[in-house]
Order: sequence, then C-alpha cells, then structure tokens
Amino acid sequence: MNNRKFILDKRPQAQITDDLFKLVTEPLPTLKDGEVLVRNQYLSLDPTHRIWMSDMEQYMPPIALGEVVRAGGVGVVTESKSPLLKTGDLVMGLLGWQDYSLHPAAALRPLPKEMDIPPTAFLSVLGLTGMTAYFGLLDITAPKAGETLVVSGAAGAVGSIVGQIGLIKGLRVIGIAGTDAKCAWLTKELGFHGAINYKTQDVKKALAELCPKGVDIYFDNVGGATTEAVWSNLNMYARVSLCGMISGYNDGKPIPGPRNYSLILMKRLKVQGFIVSDYGARWPEAIGEMYQWVKQGRIKYAEDIVEGLENAPRAVNKLFDGSNTGKLILKC
Amino acid sequence: MNNRKFILDKRPQAQITDDLFKLVTEPLPTLKDGEVLVRNQYLSLDPTHRIWMSDMEQYMPPIALGEVVRAGGVGVVTESKSPLLKTGDLVMGLLGWQDYSLHPAAALRPLPKEMDIPPTAFLSVLGLTGMTAYFGLLDITAPKAGETLVVSGAAGAVGSIVGQIGLIKGLRVIGIAGTDAKCAWLTKELGFHGAINYKTQDVKKALAELCPKGVDIYFDNVGGATTEAVWSNLNMYARVSLCGMISGYNDGKPIPGPRNYSLILMKRLKVQGFIVSDYGARWPEAIGEMYQWVKQGRIKYAEDIVEGLENAPRAVNKLFDGSNTGKLILKC
Repeated sequence: MNNRKFILDKRPQAQITDDLFKLVTEPLPTLKDGEVLVRNQYLSLDPTHRIWMSDMEQYMPPIALGEVVRAGGVGVVTESKSPLLKTGDLVMGLLGWQDYSLHPAAALRPLPKEMDIPPTAFLSVLGLTGMTAYFGLLDITAPKAGETLVVSGAAGAVGSIVGQIGLIKGLRVIGIAGTDAKCAWLTKELGFHGAINYKTQDVKKALAELCPKGVDIYFDNVGGATTEAVWSNLNMYARVSLCGMISGYNDGKPIPGPRNYSLILMKRLKVQGFIVSDYGARWPEAIGEMYQWVKQGRIKYAEDIVEGLENAPRAVNKLFDGSNTGKLILKC
Repeated sequence: MNNRKFILDKRPQAQITDDLFKLVTEPLPTLKDGEVLVRNQYLSLDPTHRIWMSDMEQYMPPIALGEVVRAGGVGVVTESKSPLLKTGDLVMGLLGWQDYSLHPAAALRPLPKEMDIPPTAFLSVLGLTGMTAYFGLLDITAPKAGETLVVSGAAGAVGSIVGQIGLIKGLRVIGIAGTDAKCAWLTKELGFHGAINYKTQDVKKALAELCPKGVDIYFDNVGGATTEAVWSNLNMYARVSLCGMISGYNDGKPIPGPRNYSLILMKRLKVQGFIVSDYGARWPEAIGEMYQWVKQGRIKYAEDIVEGLENAPRAVNKLFDGSNTGKLILKC
C-alpha cells in the first residue's frame, strides 16, 4: 500500500496554484511504539492555508518547503502501536494533505462517541471554525442583547456560525457576503436580520440603512474595502474582533490597515486579534454548548465537500473566489 | 476694557497658519445672573487643536467657523454674578484663545486650594494631559511589573508622564522622541531605561536592541512610520493604547493604519482608542495620586510656556515641528 502526499515545493506569490506542490507517492511507513497510522477521511481547507504556505510573519511556523501541506482532519485508525487508540477509532488532528498519516497517539484526539453527529462536524461547527466563531465573538467582544453585530465573510464556515451565535445572544445580526444566493441563505435559512452583497451593493450605505442604531460589534473575516465600510458605521466604543483578512491574503505583500484607522481614536474602538488555539483549554465547554445548539436546531451548519485528495490545490481556491458556502472540506 | 479673541475663519488644509484666524477686539460683556467673567491666564495648546480646527470625523464637534478657538485654560475670576465663585478665585475650564471669557459658573472648576502646586500644573501633570497619561496607560493596558513599555512622543506632555508612571509601576520604559536633547532628558532626568531619536536612528533596529524581551505595551501618540517600527517589535498579546496620531494630523487626509496592521491578527494584539473625558468621574482619584507622585519627586513635569495671546497660532505649531519639550502652554 502506498501513501500519496502533497509536498510544498514553492511559496505562493499570489493565488495558490498546482505548480506550488509536488504530489509524491511512497510506501506506507512502519510504526514505532506509541505511534498510530490513520487513514485520512476528511481534511479541513481554510483561509489560513494561504498564510501557512507563505513566509509572512504569522502565528505558527510556516509550512517548510519539502514538507507535507499542513491541514486539520478526521480519519480512522488503521494500525496502532499505542494503548491509547485502537484500530477503527475515529480521530482528529493535524493530518495533512495525504491519504495516510503517522502520529504519536497522544497527538490525536478521539472523536467523542457520545455525540450523535457526523464526523465532519468536528471540522466545522464543532471544530476549529466553530470554536473560532464561539470565542471570537463571545470572548473578544462580550456581546450584550440588543446590540448590533455585523459579520463579514458571513456565509463562510466561521461567519455563518458567528451570526447564529449572535442571534442566540439576542443581537441584531447583519451579514456581508459575495452573492445574492449567499445573502438569501443568511436571511431565509439562518435568520439573519439582513444581508449585504458587497459585490453589487454600496456596503457603507446599506449598513447605514440596515443598522439604524449603528454597529456595536464587527466580526471581521475579510479586511480591505469591506472593513473600511463597516468601520464608518461603527458606534462609539464598538468592538472589532479581528479573525481574518482574506481579501488581502493573495496580494503577496503586507496587508494594510483600513484607511479610516484613526476612527480607533475618534470612536474609542477596541480592535483585537485572536487565535482559536489560545482557547484550547476551554474547547470542551464550547463544544458541549455548540452541540446542544445544533441539536436544538438553533445553529445550522453548511458543508461544501470536494472529493479527491488530488483536487486539494484547486479546491482550496474556492475560499478565495468565494464559491463555497459554509465549511470547505476535502474528502480523501 | 476690551477683550481680544481668535476666531476660526478657515479650516486648515495642512499646517496651522496665521491666516486661518481673525483676531477680533470687542468690549467686555455684561454678566447675567449665574455668570462669571474670567481673566484667562494660561491656555493649554494641544495636538487636538489641529483636529478641532478641521472637519474630519472627531470625538467632539469641530470648532465652528466664526467661533472663538476652543482651548482649556486656567484663569482668575474678575467679576461674578454667581454664589458659586467669587472675584479672585482661580478656576479652570474651556476658556478659549482670548483675554477674557464669560461662563456659567457651573461650567468652571475651582482649582483645589489644598494642593501646593503652581496653577499651570492643572493644565499639565494634573490636567488633561496628565489624566490622559494616567488612564491611557493604567486603564487601557493594565501593565504588570517587569513588562516593557514603549512610548512615542515621549518628550511631550503626555508621553513624558506615561513613561514615568510606567517606571513607578516597575516597567522597563523606552521613549521615542525627535532630538538628542529630548532623548537625554528622558534617560538622564526622568530615568527612562532608553530613548531613541526617530529622526536619526533606525527605530525598529534600536528597539530590538533596547527591548531584549520584546515590547508588551505601546503607548502611541504619533502613528505613521514610528508606529510601524514599534509594531514590528511587539510581543504576542501586546496591548496598544492609541492616544494620538500627530504625525498625520497635518496631512489633510484620512490617517491610514500601519502597513503591518495584520500583526493584530498574527500577534493577537489589542489596539484600543480612548478619550480622557470618558474618565471624568475618576479624575479626582487620579489627580490625588499624581499629586502625591509629584510631591514625592517620582514624577517630574516640564512646561514650555510661550507668552502673549497674539502668538497662539504660531505657538501651537511647536507641537508639530517638535520644538517643545513637555507641556506647551500659552501665557495670556
């Protein structure tokens, strides 16, 4: 049996393209004591892949050239030399863009068997993106019922959950997305109070109409012109949770701040970045609460599943051309 | 008796120049019940004058064209039709660029007689700039002993107090200023651990040398290139207290954010703006503590006093060409 794996060969200057990678085939490794072999089933494709592939200053070391492309995922243990895990166990961890992955057993987490939910949920609503939404909204912005929340990248894996948690907390929720279909999904399926298509509408003006009491909280996934338009509508003492800047990741240069940055001063804003891994100790609490919300039908989640490991480089670009709705996942 | 007053006639496009104002002479007003007349003695000249004179989005209404130029100040009551104040009382309030000012007595605050300190202190260390330093450092950044603080505009009225409060709180304190003389004053007179002349040194490199453990807190008075250099040296979870952006006030266009703005995300920064007036209720507490520190010799303050109301427009430019050290005050 062989393993196919994508090796990072070159760093992207702009878009992610096929020629950045080499697809290598090699025999399956032999296990040492304490190790397990995992058949990767589902891999998480995220905007941060573009960051990890670059050598910009970032929150983890970049993927080294010659290394397998880093990716979280869910898989099944096919061989074990550890008492911690046995063949057939479903696990999650940093599996990488490959068919199989070898790990010290302690580096993987078994999926909770008591939760009646498909395994991909642990890559979406109960995974890193769900946790990002949960802590990035609740911990960074401390929302109060009656406040107005605007979320950009609203039809994405993080944004769609942020908005629904906002609704649960009694906020007025406005989403910004890139197609009319996404906007309709946000308002009709998820219950957002309003949605704006940033490609066809004047975001600044539309927000002023949809947010008669101004904007108290901005959950920012995108940066750029959308962010400037939202900032213009922020209230005094508004809080900005800075989760991502996807609009600038492909530019191949540092991502500048908004041109109306001085509003931080004039409006006494708080702008805060965060990384979900900082909240690791509190994930069990958050996963438990999110699971209940899903079971109660208060949080819906969408998954956009692309099949075939060989399609990984092209699939990840759906995040950047905006053609995904919900969590982008690769089925190996 | 006559009153001379500076009326704002035009808004500045770049630097503040004489031709923006009209110096008008008019008879002293007649008092109504509840009013007092004040002979203005000392006026506070601050970077925010440039903001108030413009029509950029700001934290108070701009000065209206045709109105006297707004300015805080200290003066003596020369006539009173209020039981609250009597002739000879020293008061502070928004007096304006003029020889005399008329106020409802309740709009003024008497200087505390129990404090043995010159009246100008209530425009500097015990005034708005001292309060700005106090709350902008202690409340916005919650410093912990052993952390490293960098302050820009460090020889100014706010920056010089910020650094000294930092020293009292056990921080390593590095100041950034624009002349070698200012830098020498910071390290030799005020006890800063280091100082950098941004006009002659590579700030990014100098900071890396002076802050071997990185920068935990940045108190930002200036924005622009200096801010970008400091951000490059910030530690994970660093806090930025955004107090001013004086390097951009004369540009006549919106002041952009730093080009390395994405560090908010990568380093999980918290960037927060504030306005000292929001802390009005806590000023007595802060003034009391700062007064003790001054009396104990733990806080020194410098005042740069320019004489003559007629010199106000030129005097205020000392803030922008960097020729003042400490609090800039106009003696009427």
